[in-house]
Amino acid sequence: MIKTDILIIGAGPTGLFAVFEAGLLKLKCHLIDALAQPGGQCTEIYPKKPIYDIPAFPEVLAGDLVTNLMEQIKPFEPGFTLGERAETIEKQDDGSFIVTTNRGTQHHAPIVAIAGGLGSFEPRKPPLENIAKFEDKGVEYIIKNPEIYREKRIVIAGGGDSALDWAIYLANVAGEVVLVHRRNEFRGALDSVEKVAELKAQGRIQLITPAEVTALNGTDKLEGITIQKKDEDPINHPCDHFIPLFGLAPKLGPIANWGLEIEKNAIVVNNSLDYQTNIPGIYAIGDVNTYPGKLKLILCGFHEATLMCQSAYQRINPGKKNVLKYTTVSGISGFDGSKKEAPKAVVKSIN
Amino acid sequence: MIKTDILIIGAGPTGLFAVFEAGLLKLKCHLIDALAQPGGQCTEIYPKKPIYDIPAFPEVLAGDLVTNLMEQIKPFEPGFTLGERAETIEKQDDGSFIVTTNRGTQHHAPIVAIAGGLGSFEPRKPPLENIAKFEDKGVEYIIKNPEIYREKRIVIAGGGDSALDWAIYLANVAGEVVLVHRRNEFRGALDSVEKVAELKAQGRIQLITPAEVTALNGTDKLEGITIQKKDEDPINHPCDHFIPLFGLAPKLGPIANWGLEIEKNAIVVNNSLDYQTNIPGIYAIGDVNTYPGKLKLILCGFHEATLMCQSAYQRINPGKKNVLKYTTVSGISGFDGSKKEAPKAVVKSIN
Repeated sequence: MIKTDILIIGAGPTGLFAVFEAGLLKLKCHLIDALAQPGGQCTEIYPKKPIYDIPAFPEVLAGDLVTNLMEQIKPFEPGFTLGERAETIEKQDDGSFIVTTNRGTQHHAPIVAIAGGLGSFEPRKPPLENIAKFEDKGVEYIIKNPEIYREKRIVIAGGGDSALDWAIYLANVAGEVVLVHRRNEFRGALDSVEKVAELKAQGRIQLITPAEVTALNGTDKLEGITIQKKDEDPINHPCDHFIPLFGLAPKLGPIANWGLEIEKNAIVVNNSLDYQTNIPGIYAIGDVNTYPGKLKLILCGFHEATLMCQSAYQRINPGKKNVLKYTTVSGISGFDGSKKEAPKAVVKSIN
Repeated sequence: MIKTDILIIGAGPTGLFAVFEAGLLKLKCHLIDALAQPGGQCTEIYPKKPIYDIPAFPEVLAGDLVTNLMEQIKPFEPGFTLGERAETIEKQDDGSFIVTTNRGTQHHAPIVAIAGGLGSFEPRKPPLENIAKFEDKGVEYIIKNPEIYREKRIVIAGGGDSALDWAIYLANVAGEVVLVHRRNEFRGALDSVEKVAELKAQGRIQLITPAEVTALNGTDKLEGITIQKKDEDPINHPCDHFIPLFGLAPKLGPIANWGLEIEKNAIVVNNSLDYQTNIPGIYAIGDVNTYPGKLKLILCGFHEATLMCQSAYQRINPGKKNVLKYTTVSGISGFDGSKKEAPKAVVKSIN
């Protein structure tokens, strides 16, 4: 059982910054995220896109924003449960919570902060009847470890950046790479489109367009797929892996069943005080919450995370007074023993 | 008369960022600040001090934070009235406001956003009976234009960074520089203390310590001062300028008389919606406001500024629907004609 002070569900920018504000109050954090790495949408969906509305960054790439936040919270040594989805929550007699993931990992904390963004990003699945049967048996919607494809025959479906980038990457790893797309046109960075064309010319990527995968074949595991090229007869194509990369769609997911007040797919919080939900001890911060005037902006999540931490401190340390300290005056003392502070003024006589 | 959409009182980080969020909504801003340059405390009091709690900046100098914000808002071409203090406000029949400064500059806007931080920073004045008589006639508390001291005889009082830095700077400008301090010890950057010692050794700065200025002499303008060195007889020292640099103290100032609800030297706002004060059309954002759970942090000011702008937009454009756009998707179109946006995906066939 993982124990912490604040269990944060969602490791996007808001969840990450909560670690910092909690750390200033000497509270430990642990984060759960369904994605394989921290950063939420910023890392998963648009790492190379510039954001212009983060205060004091005239322009910052979403991926760099996450890198900066990870560096900022490092002294506070957060724990991570990644690639797992928070599934159930149980309130204990002492008011604390146990949160269990889809893989059975248990987390125990007096405070739960839901920073789930637009929800778990669930891969969009192609409408193939028996696809569930082959999940993790040859069908993957997210590439977590490219090494499992070494020397294998793989088919990627999709026409966006993910499909293009992975086709390029796996051309050097897999035994055979086939890219199937329902149009002739690909939508991605110019570099990627040109690189795929080049690999096709070299015979290292097979391109089948306009075409769709219409069936999955195999007994215990995937053995092949059926590809239907427009105006042609379907063909059976033997392969070891089928990787449909049709993007991710957000879903609030299991959190919707935790007894929280929900309005338009978002969790209602008390914005006039501390962003607490209808269940005392559970907060919701960032894009996942809603209140009058709510804006789904990263900078708002930062503010909400900060006020949430103050309230969490009071719940954990009832009656204990916490005096706000300015970091420019007091510096930062991390849990890792590090200390950062401004050089002190020198007091010196002149004779 | 200066006309704008949102008149922002206070050009610290919160006021500056409000320009950005207003700009996204195509609202023009004008800022008034009692200080001679934008940035508030960050620029005036601790430009070289690192801040650690700005999200996604593991460490940033206060001065750099302001530089970044100025760059971020540049496309929205804010106006500035600097070195003047907002003195009076008059509500017009149409609900708009006219704000007049201590120098008589008038500003007209439908929305006033007070981002006054801890208030105007008023110089701490030495308790000399007739000092008011000599203000702007030889006595200055803030150095706005060092050129007025060229070839003049000046006396600086104080023992901190400002006194040290200006003594060093003016040693190259003024005809004579005397530095008076009530202790032998100076409190400042090591560099500055050593530089003053060096200039003293060269005879370019006269140091009188421990001593105090006890009287100002002159008829129409300052002609000399009386310096009382410890355990010695007072001496009369002829000079053209006396510059006491004893730091700045925050004061809410004239805003306290605008009819706003004040609590513990801060303006009460409706934090459950839009940070509006008890006077419709007047908002208060950043350190100047108060509400349950308020934290005087720059990052909170950023959030408050953002929600304020949305509300201001509704007041200015009643009934008009404003759809929140993500800058990472839509980019930024400045009033100066500039346009920043992420490279668009390329749609291309591969043959």
